[in-house]
Amino acid sequence: MSGNTFGVLYCVTSFGESHGPAYGGVVDGCPPGLELKNEDLQKELDRRKPGSSRHVTQRRESDAVEILSGVFEGRTTGAAIGFLVRNEDARSKDYSAIAEKFRPGHADYTYWQKYGVRDARGGGRASARETVVRVAAGAIAKKWLKERYGVVIRGCLAALGKNEIPFQSWGEVDRNPFFMANAALVKKMEAFMDELRESGDSCGARVNVVAEGVPVGWGEPVYGRLDADIAAAMMSINAVKGVEIGAGFAAIAQKGSEHGDEMTPQGFVSNNNGGVLGGISTGQAVTVSIALKPTSSIRLPRRTIDKSGRATTVETTGRHDPCVGIRATPIAEAMLACVLMDHALRHRAQCGDVTPPTRLSR
Amino acid sequence: MSGNTFGVLYCVTSFGESHGPAYGGVVDGCPPGLELKNEDLQKELDRRKPGSSRHVTQRRESDAVEILSGVFEGRTTGAAIGFLVRNEDARSKDYSAIAEKFRPGHADYTYWQKYGVRDARGGGRASARETVVRVAAGAIAKKWLKERYGVVIRGCLAALGKNEIPFQSWGEVDRNPFFMANAALVKKMEAFMDELRESGDSCGARVNVVAEGVPVGWGEPVYGRLDADIAAAMMSINAVKGVEIGAGFAAIAQKGSEHGDEMTPQGFVSNNNGGVLGGISTGQAVTVSIALKPTSSIRLPRRTIDKSGRATTVETTGRHDPCVGIRATPIAEAMLACVLMDHALRHRAQCGDVTPPTRLSR
Amino acid sequence: MSGNTFGVLYCVTSFGESHGPAYGGVVDGCPPGLELKNEDLQKELDRRKPGSSRHVTQRRESDAVEILSGVFEGRTTGAAIGFLVRNEDARSKDYSAIAEKFRPGHADYTYWQKYGVRDARGGGRASARETVVRVAAGAIAKKWLKERYGVVIRGCLAALGKNEIPFQSWGEVDRNPFFMANAALVKKMEAFMDELRESGDSCGARVNVVAEGVPVGWGEPVYGRLDADIAAAMMSINAVKGVEIGAGFAAIAQKGSEHGDEMTPQGFVSNNNGGVLGGISTGQAVTVSIALKPTSSIRLPRRTIDKSGRATTVETTGRHDPCVGIRATPIAEAMLACVLMDHALRHRAQCGDVTPPTRLSR
Amino acid sequence: MSGNTFGVLYCVTSFGESHGPAYGGVVDGCPPGLELKNEDLQKELDRRKPGSSRHVTQRRESDAVEILSGVFEGRTTGAAIGFLVRNEDARSKDYSAIAEKFRPGHADYTYWQKYGVRDARGGGRASARETVVRVAAGAIAKKWLKERYGVVIRGCLAALGKNEIPFQSWGEVDRNPFFMANAALVKKMEAFMDELRESGDSCGARVNVVAEGVPVGWGEPVYGRLDADIAAAMMSINAVKGVEIGAGFAAIAQKGSEHGDEMTPQGFVSNNNGGVLGGISTGQAVTVSIALKPTSSIRLPRRTIDKSGRATTVETTGRHDPCVGIRATPIAEAMLACVLMDHALRHRAQCGDVTPPTRLSR
Repeated sequence: MSGNTFGVLYCVTSFGESHGPAYGGVVDGCPPGLELKNEDLQKELDRRKPGSSRHVTQRRESDAVEILSGVFEGRTTGAAIGFLVRNEDARSKDYSAIAEKFRPGHADYTYWQKYGVRDARGGGRASARETVVRVAAGAIAKKWLKERYGVVIRGCLAALGKNEIPFQSWGEVDRNPFFMANAALVKKMEAFMDELRESGDSCGARVNVVAEGVPVGWGEPVYGRLDADIAAAMMSINAVKGVEIGAGFAAIAQKGSEHGDEMTPQGFVSNNNGGVLGGISTGQAVTVSIALKPTSSIRLPRRTIDKSGRATTVETTGRHDPCVGIRATPIAEAMLACVLMDHALRHRAQCGDVTPPTRLSR
Repeated sequence: MSGNTFGVLYCVTSFGESHGPAYGGVVDGCPPGLELKNEDLQKELDRRKPGSSRHVTQRRESDAVEILSGVFEGRTTGAAIGFLVRNEDARSKDYSAIAEKFRPGHADYTYWQKYGVRDARGGGRASARETVVRVAAGAIAKKWLKERYGVVIRGCLAALGKNEIPFQSWGEVDRNPFFMANAALVKKMEAFMDELRESGDSCGARVNVVAEGVPVGWGEPVYGRLDADIAAAMMSINAVKGVEIGAGFAAIAQKGSEHGDEMTPQGFVSNNNGGVLGGISTGQAVTVSIALKPTSSIRLPRRTIDKSGRATTVETTGRHDPCVGIRATPIAEAMLACVLMDHALRHRAQCGDVTPPTRLSR
Repeated sequence: MSGNTFGVLYCVTSFGESHGPAYGGVVDGCPPGLELKNEDLQKELDRRKPGSSRHVTQRRESDAVEILSGVFEGRTTGAAIGFLVRNEDARSKDYSAIAEKFRPGHADYTYWQKYGVRDARGGGRASARETVVRVAAGAIAKKWLKERYGVVIRGCLAALGKNEIPFQSWGEVDRNPFFMANAALVKKMEAFMDELRESGDSCGARVNVVAEGVPVGWGEPVYGRLDADIAAAMMSINAVKGVEIGAGFAAIAQKGSEHGDEMTPQGFVSNNNGGVLGGISTGQAVTVSIALKPTSSIRLPRRTIDKSGRATTVETTGRHDPCVGIRATPIAEAMLACVLMDHALRHRAQCGDVTPPTRLSR
Repeated sequence: MSGNTFGVLYCVTSFGESHGPAYGGVVDGCPPGLELKNEDLQKELDRRKPGSSRHVTQRRESDAVEILSGVFEGRTTGAAIGFLVRNEDARSKDYSAIAEKFRPGHADYTYWQKYGVRDARGGGRASARETVVRVAAGAIAKKWLKERYGVVIRGCLAALGKNEIPFQSWGEVDRNPFFMANAALVKKMEAFMDELRESGDSCGARVNVVAEGVPVGWGEPVYGRLDADIAAAMMSINAVKGVEIGAGFAAIAQKGSEHGDEMTPQGFVSNNNGGVLGGISTGQAVTVSIALKPTSSIRLPRRTIDKSGRATTVETTGRHDPCVGIRATPIAEAMLACVLMDHALRHRAQCGDVTPPTRLSR
């Protein structure tokens, strides 16, 4: 299947461009009977919405979502769920200055070479605005996972540029514009962002996502591993350059005697494996960490070429996030939710008759 | 599709267990006309073969591969390519001591909970011996990519436990038992491994893989990004806990003015994006780095539980790699080759009529 | 992938219910550079539109389609093409009388048992109104196949109930409300339909579809045969109960010396195989014939049960086609177009480098 | 995914050529815990084996199957099930006379044009010998469906050339070499076949397959309809030119008042829909009928061309079935079993939490 659909049983299909009339998606495979209304999607969409603070793009989009199918009398029917988000504040003229040039770090050049055409307005299909579809689809998955299995998926900003942000409390995450789980650093990060914005430059970020309550047994060996599908889902988010599960790259320097999570009758003693062993969930929290590169659209002049291959420079003056990672938390949560839901369905398809022989405490 | 097949157009299907009669695979979608013989697969299989030095498992397997279909008079016909590798040196009795216990860091517990059954012999389906199938399938992909597009895929060990191994030369990689691209450090690493083996413990590793010569344009936005498929393929390799493309996690601390690869008429000035922008190859080298956790099978006693949930300890005395990362290089190369070949085919399906408007030097 | 998407490379995803706000779809995998505007889809949608004569349902729908993405400056970009058709004339109250009963021949009972919920309004997701999505997706495929390969896809009504309708000329098809390729029988069929409608009953139909200009070589053995995919596509159309390729069921009574199409330097002498041999197109016309069952919604009283399992009777008084086969021609054409386009792309993915050794005249 | 794999959750992958070393397959997605041994597959393979009577090809193959993975201590583990059938009696020299010509009705020409190469020995990949893989995979599905859901799948020869063979009793099917459910006609059919074989010609056949005990609710609207997947599976069998579900083509001439299966508290009154409504099983028997064309390999001279395009004639003197339909019954059963099992798994993935509100008697 082509690149705009993902999932085996919980399938998400996406369409839309930054400056086209609308984004939309189709969620296929959702079990029937789930209570669902526009607000369930809207709530999550509002978390990633642009324009919500001075630290993100000032494009004004209400991101109002309309469910078009698959719901009858307030509950899912098992039919495909179509939904639509109209674009409202596209300013295509912002892009006239750059239509003939390639912005470094952007997909302008690769799309143009691949397809032979280029929709320069706001990144076209490559725009991170496409993540509205992911967040809407993820909202459904989150709700189902919570209601059916008690799975709770949460994320937070773990680093903003060079600033590490230690985890303190999930309760903080929705109280600051950065999705930081740390109240003490909010002011410092605001100052950091103000300065960064002022400088015309941008920075990268790290986002951590955790799913708690995942039952043991989700995931398919060998190529359909839970962590493999998570890795793909995360790496498919715009600007992501790295994915870790559990100890991630720190595992390189660990000894086996340190890394391998010991087990006791009370459960696992540690979680270096990030809740996945052999591609199958262990019953512990599934922990994922991703690296987002700095926004490519910056106001500083950069060397590039134009469509004729001639050397030139480019500055990007449209409305952009100085750190795309800031709004990435709800997106990463959504992708994790979609993958987990897909595997929940896949697991019960093949192993619906298995009674797990025993179970550790979490 | 279920978990033992991957790829959209270049599809690899795998079967086999560590102590069963054989491993085998089916490669579907290979273009016709490629010269192919057993030796083409054997050459790569010999690179990952166990028992090739004292630093890896002493299990003795010739890993002799037999192509069973899809080749006629020395060339691929376009039909499915089936191949088989018989197991020769399985010693199932090694496992009797641990059949009732779960080895920390292994998939014993998760398989048992998921499927309700447990093949304790050598990890069963979860064994890293499954990678013979990947390497065989990758050998075909490598050969086709090289002959058809001039793509060259190479990898090397970049860290062995805490020891960073700076890259010096591709020429060294096949001259030492570690796939190190650095002659100067071989002795030191041999001593390190001897000491590690002596201690009964294990360590992690980093492997870097690079594909040079990839044309601009491979990869499908949005969910079918080239880097997303690479991430899945790499994370599906046994023991991998992290994947980076280009700058990877280092991108977090970069500024946009530093990360975004500038372009000149002579080509890109840097390659922080690892040869992929917007999920589509740029024409630069595709660079991937993976983290492998330390081998879970160690001789040191570890706390665990048995099938009844009672506390016990376990030591693993079978024949194991003290560092699974050592043999991972050909496997990672193979997975990258399979993904690239899949995308080469997918690209020409959709964009076979596009003449890339212009092209930077590499 | 779940049931609302079909195709491997030319992927069509569908959503919508008969009495919901809208139908819509996403076409993924269309090559870039194809000229495309709303009218290209509208033209085909108008052919299957309800209310176009007294012989079909009197529901009044303009079926106005809006392309929402994937097209820039009048040409496809290679991105997913989303489109929307709003429902305008749903009269849900027509269904209140039958909400508690199961209509014989309808999917009411099976949907209810499968999903545990029932959207009784107009068949919900099971309504044949879903075929707007197919026709829209097929319009794109038809256009591309025509422009890129010269493929022409046409269909006609070949039997209306017991009345066989001999083929005379493609030119007639769009000149009568039945898609008959036979001018002489139009009056007779109008009388037949008037009488049928009067009686409150319904009848079945046969529709033939032909694709001319298909190059030799499309289709994948073994399970991905061109004819297998055509069979699935046709059988997935509402009310279809049978599919034939070439001689179809007549082949049972043929001798091998009669059926096997002889070849001469001027081409094949006959076309019993319907343009497909071994699952691969021969270069001849691909010929398909389908059987559509009589409309299940009739005004005559029928025995059934209600939701409590009690015996009752039901008459269906909503607005329905007395013969669903009448409007099936553009739908069958569309499905054939989608399958052919999918295989055109699949073929050039795997065999893009093959020069067909020789070629018969058509 | 490419053409040698089918199924979404119960996935069958196939490889092998008529005159290569072996056929083999991989079944992925089978639930764990199913008792399975070589004999379970062998039993079904023996039913389709060549050389079992004078009415079929005299090629002598034991078709001995070896399960290579996925089974541990006599039960499936949930891992991929690989299996192998070695070819034993390939006589490639039989084909030297025809290596330069195209046999009418065969895939010689289309394979050659598609792939640019031709394995003329026994049809290569296009040989109906590939159906060993289907039958082996179907044997597993049949067993699971029977044990888990009580589904019984049976087929019989319903017409041999122009001879209709009325159904009398399932008990007869395995007592004659034709899979006829009619003892009275066996002698007549033997005489018919002797005469046919004598004449050097071949004939077509009709095979009916029935699945009893299928629960209500299997199948996915819209494109993933149960009957659509059945149609594809059947049409993918070598020589099949037509597929019917339920009333099939007879539905064309039916009135709605005749076709629509009425319901009473005791169940459906008739089964014109063949056990499928809206693409979802009704709980009635799923009834399928297929048309198989006459064998293309006949001893009578036929006009054709050679590789240079010159006119010539060809006679096929290898060992062939004078009616491929005779051995098609177990193959059609197998394909139906695979599709039903796939949908059983898909159904419980999405609707595993649904309690069917009520249920008709069968």
